[in-house]
Amino acid sequence: PRKSSPVETTVPCSLEELYRGATKKMKISREIADISGKTMPVEEILTIDIKPGWKKGTKITFPEKGNEQPNMVPADLVFIIDEKPHSVFTRDGNDLITNEKISLVEALTGYTVNLKTLDGRSLSIPINNVIHPSYEEVVPGEGMPMQKDPTKKGNLRIKFNIKFPSRLTSEQKAGIKRLFGS
Amino acid sequence: PRKSSPVETTVPCSLEELYRGATKKMKISREIADISGKTMPVEEILTIDIKPGWKKGTKITFPEKGNEQPNMVPADLVFIIDEKPHSVFTRDGNDLITNEKISLVEALTGYTVNLKTLDGRSLSIPINNVIHPSYEEVVPGEGMPMQKDPTKKGNLRIKFNIKFPSRLTSEQKAGIKRLFGS
Repeated sequence: PRKSSPVETTVPCSLEELYRGATKKMKISREIADISGKTMPVEEILTIDIKPGWKKGTKITFPEKGNEQPNMVPADLVFIIDEKPHSVFTRDGNDLITNEKISLVEALTGYTVNLKTLDGRSLSIPINNVIHPSYEEVVPGEGMPMQKDPTKKGNLRIKFNIKFPSRLTSEQKAGIKRLFGS
Repeated sequence: PRKSSPVETTVPCSLEELYRGATKKMKISREIADISGKTMPVEEILTIDIKPGWKKGTKITFPEKGNEQPNMVPADLVFIIDEKPHSVFTRDGNDLITNEKISLVEALTGYTVNLKTLDGRSLSIPINNVIHPSYEEVVPGEGMPMQKDPTKKGNLRIKFNIKFPSRLTSEQKAGIKRLFGS
């Protein structure tokens, strides 16, 4: 008998879920047929076991869980992992990227990044360098878990958006010139 | 008779040539055939009249200027304008973009951009605002001529690469905090 083509459903997951792993119960409605060919609707719960480090596009197939019809093999049900936007982090492979808004004074005189990780820990990262516009602070091991070995993790990469003052007084301009000897 | 497929040749042009317009003489070698079908090589000079504002990808076709062969219509010769990289400007449609490297002190206390245009004029553009990392100074009418009406021109967009000091002394840090009152 012919087989119906797969039925695909998107499963939106938060970065937290993809970081820690999660179990999602999906309620599906399908038609099943008895021996006579008469169909009746049933509801079923399918369980998706999301592993730490799964990426957008990961597919989970439940074979032949589609509607039953006479003379047809039921379709496969395919769930496709999608990644919901996160308010703090974006993902780049196994790396996490975050943007900190800081003032020019903070960029020049010192700044400590305070962040909550995806598993709820508090990170405090003091930066001792001058933070220039393309500066990136890389924190090894604070990225996403790697799918093949979730004990290993990617990097956290912190970028900076430096807010300049919109106007300087002539005293401030003179002071800057004096401080930097030009 | 069948016609040979077009022969394409790239013509690299400088931004200056595409700004002002230019005449390019292209020397080509081709075979021509006499009535008996005997072919002999000849050299010809083709003139390409590059108009101000022409863009990369513009095609100029010289019909049937390819090799002559018995029982074939000679191929068209097609010249395709390409844009050579420029040391100062990049092109974005009708706009010209340039990047100025300036110091943080210049960004904060004032800076004048001095530029030579593609037709050799000297531009001096004083900037009275604080120049932040994504600041863009737009100079109307100093971009590329528009192909349909070369008296009209796009914008010149000046971007800035602000070089931060790599280290600050504790006196400089204290001074910055004092100047910006934080």
